Amino acid sequence: MDPSPSLSERPATGKRDAMTSDAARPEARSPRGFIDRRARDLAAERQILVAVSEVYERYGFEALDTGAFEYADALGKFLPDADRPNEGVFALTDDDDQWLALRYDLTAPLARFAAENWDSLPKPFRRYAFGPVWRNEKPGPGRYRQFVQCDADTVGSARPEADAEIIGMAVEGLEAAGLPAGAAVVKINNRKLLNGLMTAAGVTSEGQKLAVLRAVDKLDRLGPDGVRLLLGEGRKDESGDFTKGAGLTGSAAERVLAFTAAGGGGRGETLDRLSSVIGGSAEGDEGLAELAAIDAALSALGVGAERAAFDPSVVRGLEYYTGAVFEAELLLPTTDDRGQAVRFGSIGGGGRYDDLVARFTGERTPATGFSFGVTRLAAALKAAGRDLAADARGPVVVLVLDQDRMADYFAVVGELRAAGITAEVYLGTSGMRPQMKYADRRLSPVAVILGGDEFAAGTVTLKDLDLGRALASGVADNAAWRAERPGQMTLPRSDLVAAVRGIVAALPSGAGA
Amino acid sequence: MDPSPSLSERPATGKRDAMTSDAARPEARSPRGFIDRRARDLAAERQILVAVSEVYERYGFEALDTGAFEYADALGKFLPDADRPNEGVFALTDDDDQWLALRYDLTAPLARFAAENWDSLPKPFRRYAFGPVWRNEKPGPGRYRQFVQCDADTVGSARPEADAEIIGMAVEGLEAAGLPAGAAVVKINNRKLLNGLMTAAGVTSEGQKLAVLRAVDKLDRLGPDGVRLLLGEGRKDESGDFTKGAGLTGSAAERVLAFTAAGGGGRGETLDRLSSVIGGSAEGDEGLAELAAIDAALSALGVGAERAAFDPSVVRGLEYYTGAVFEAELLLPTTDDRGQAVRFGSIGGGGRYDDLVARFTGERTPATGFSFGVTRLAAALKAAGRDLAADARGPVVVLVLDQDRMADYFAVVGELRAAGITAEVYLGTSGMRPQMKYADRRLSPVAVILGGDEFAAGTVTLKDLDLGRALASGVADNAAWRAERPGQMTLPRSDLVAAVRGIVAALPSGAGA
Repeated sequence: MDPSPSLSERPATGKRDAMTSDAARPEARSPRGFIDRRARDLAAERQILVAVSEVYERYGFEALDTGAFEYADALGKFLPDADRPNEGVFALTDDDDQWLALRYDLTAPLARFAAENWDSLPKPFRRYAFGPVWRNEKPGPGRYRQFVQCDADTVGSARPEADAEIIGMAVEGLEAAGLPAGAAVVKINNRKLLNGLMTAAGVTSEGQKLAVLRAVDKLDRLGPDGVRLLLGEGRKDESGDFTKGAGLTGSAAERVLAFTAAGGGGRGETLDRLSSVIGGSAEGDEGLAELAAIDAALSALGVGAERAAFDPSVVRGLEYYTGAVFEAELLLPTTDDRGQAVRFGSIGGGGRYDDLVARFTGERTPATGFSFGVTRLAAALKAAGRDLAADARGPVVVLVLDQDRMADYFAVVGELRAAGITAEVYLGTSGMRPQMKYADRRLSPVAVILGGDEFAAGTVTLKDLDLGRALASGVADNAAWRAERPGQMTLPRSDLVAAVRGIVAALPSGAGA
Repeated sequence: MDPSPSLSERPATGKRDAMTSDAARPEARSPRGFIDRRARDLAAERQILVAVSEVYERYGFEALDTGAFEYADALGKFLPDADRPNEGVFALTDDDDQWLALRYDLTAPLARFAAENWDSLPKPFRRYAFGPVWRNEKPGPGRYRQFVQCDADTVGSARPEADAEIIGMAVEGLEAAGLPAGAAVVKINNRKLLNGLMTAAGVTSEGQKLAVLRAVDKLDRLGPDGVRLLLGEGRKDESGDFTKGAGLTGSAAERVLAFTAAGGGGRGETLDRLSSVIGGSAEGDEGLAELAAIDAALSALGVGAERAAFDPSVVRGLEYYTGAVFEAELLLPTTDDRGQAVRFGSIGGGGRYDDLVARFTGERTPATGFSFGVTRLAAALKAAGRDLAADARGPVVVLVLDQDRMADYFAVVGELRAAGITAEVYLGTSGMRPQMKYADRRLSPVAVILGGDEFAAGTVTLKDLDLGRALASGVADNAAWRAERPGQMTLPRSDLVAAVRGIVAALPSGAGA
């Protein structure tokens, strides 16, 4: 609600006209492609935010938050006043007839901010950002029109060491977010190597180059033999459909395959192998020199090849970036909702793009960055069995058995909260059984019962609600658990806080979820 | 940037066509009424988020995040497909011709969510939310079209104790956010008391009632004598303009003034005074009983009148809410940017509104909540001298004096970061002096210097950058400071981390900002 509605203003929320007739009642539904996220998801996301921010700030990156809107021209889209101005973005016209659009990534706002404030910024400018982005696309399963991204970028440094720093920081950030060491690897490639390869392979046209890239991108799915066909004349798939190939000669195709197979082992070994495939072309040598500098800086930072490897088979994004390109891939075995093993794939990526600010200033400005989807990382952690919010707990619920004793119940929650225990008084008007059901739905570990008997005797009764859930989920063995934790106990009122603390602390991890 | 741009997709950001001609270059500017927020502001906001969330969760409130958009009909606005659909909200039509609008508060999305999920929610439903809201209004100084709110609401409880819990939680939340005890007070009133007063004062029409409310709202500015005139025939101001009064009789006006003056002292005393002014009217008695229950619960929670007081002079929002109404007011003396004392006023508010879900379901659902503007609270904390980010520090900057020694510089930052110290290597290509200027702009406490002499001798030189800033700002006395902290020191390379830690720890609070 509005913090300070004034008497003269019409209420903003329109609550006053809420008691409308049936006919006027809107249906309560969230817009297509937008989701409501509850405590558990948000807890995982907030832990990622806190952990990653701590790392990024330790690397000297400063937080930046821009508004949800940018002028459409700043986003690099031309939005005519036509029937469908919303192609890809959510756009509308402002009072002054300028087109506004919700940001669809965090890079375009950074470009605008950097260009707007270039003179006053310390350079190179290092910033990170967390925030929602919006895509006006057709929603689908797991595909939303709003999601949270986290980006870190260095603007104004052409040094390969700036790439290395971003890579090392991404590695450390993902680990801080909960991925165990070795659970993910950042794969690194370089656009210039690719250009060198194209020269070495005799590729002449942009169309042929794109066909080569598309063929290499299918390496995972088709294997070297399938890709060899696509690099040459073409390939007929199982259904008989023919895909025209890139038209390379046999030796050129082998060179491309040797290039993509140069990864594995130490970063230095990969560089040696690459040198023999594409060495000699000026641009290829430049790319190799950049990767060598990245390797040296990563090694100095203590980031080995098991965490950040050179992998020339990474071609996604190579058309898009201008130099180094990175892709973070989850290595842990993951399972889907039905327990089936699945390949999770990429959890983030980035690279060097040197045209960021030029859109506004006309001056080429080198930049490099890494981006990951926060929701996707949370899903990766969950799929890897690292559910950050698995042991989410509900509050201790103090039941209301005597309406005239509300102050006593509030004194109990006051004591519990002062001891750092999450607690609440039941605030509905239902009887004992619905109150117990409420406590169970809240994933409450303990219900506190204070009725006539307890008030008379100066005692309190605690009901262990984890017990039932643990038994139901098979976490606990009935007999063993019962021997250790009685389902219900009555104790002196003065022992309340200590006893509740004991039960909450004894909870088997994950049983509350 | 897009975490995983595919080869077949056109890059989302349009970076590829960045090198456009001068004529096509857009101006880099943030949209009207939207601001970019940098590290310092965000640090204060994040501290508020973390501290307040911890309190709210300890009270048993669960986090909820809804999407930025709602269907316009769910917001309670009728948005015709007319020339200006954006009156007050940012709205646009979706592919399926439904109107979408960005939320302008966090209450309307809660209403939609609660109605949509009512059957499956534990009831009463307690949720809190942090997030941006958007208002399509004319921007002005300090008045933005996007700002961050924090709301907490209990839906489905008519108990006055639900109000008390919200009030107690708000008090504790504001204190956790950084307001010292006694720096703010939550003032509580009740719509039903007001209705009882109107009956007791013989007010008959809605128009007369509104005139009474408007008069009372001017109490701070005009004092009792001015308000007495406005309650009666009317008042001529200094400029000679006449404001018509509410037309109450003299005794009715005195009753209204007695009502507004009933606050002060303990909550029980205020109730006694109120009882003598409006006791006897059925609705007034109901309001008094509710306040008595709120008093009892607050007392049980340990929240005294110095933190939450009854104040019948609070009339802002009384037209809007249906029962209790709360307003949190900053009591600390505050100063503006020029050091002038200013009255800061309200930092948040809320109350009981029982029609929340009825818009969708037709069923009256009692609800109560408290809301504050996060940016406004951060401003209040700053104005009260509690700037959460006042001691914001920049990174230790390792200067680059020898291009061939980059790996050595990266080893230094690696060591510093491993010790928990924020650090970075300078990644530009400028010489020593611009590098020092860069470090100073970053509010760096220390510059680490490793040149030919240091490499040869196995030493490192540290330059204390806080010194210059502290002297410039008058925080430190030149002679005393210099005796304790030399501006520059050369020491064995192996002592680097310990020495940097010593300098960072010795920083006088606030000197880095």
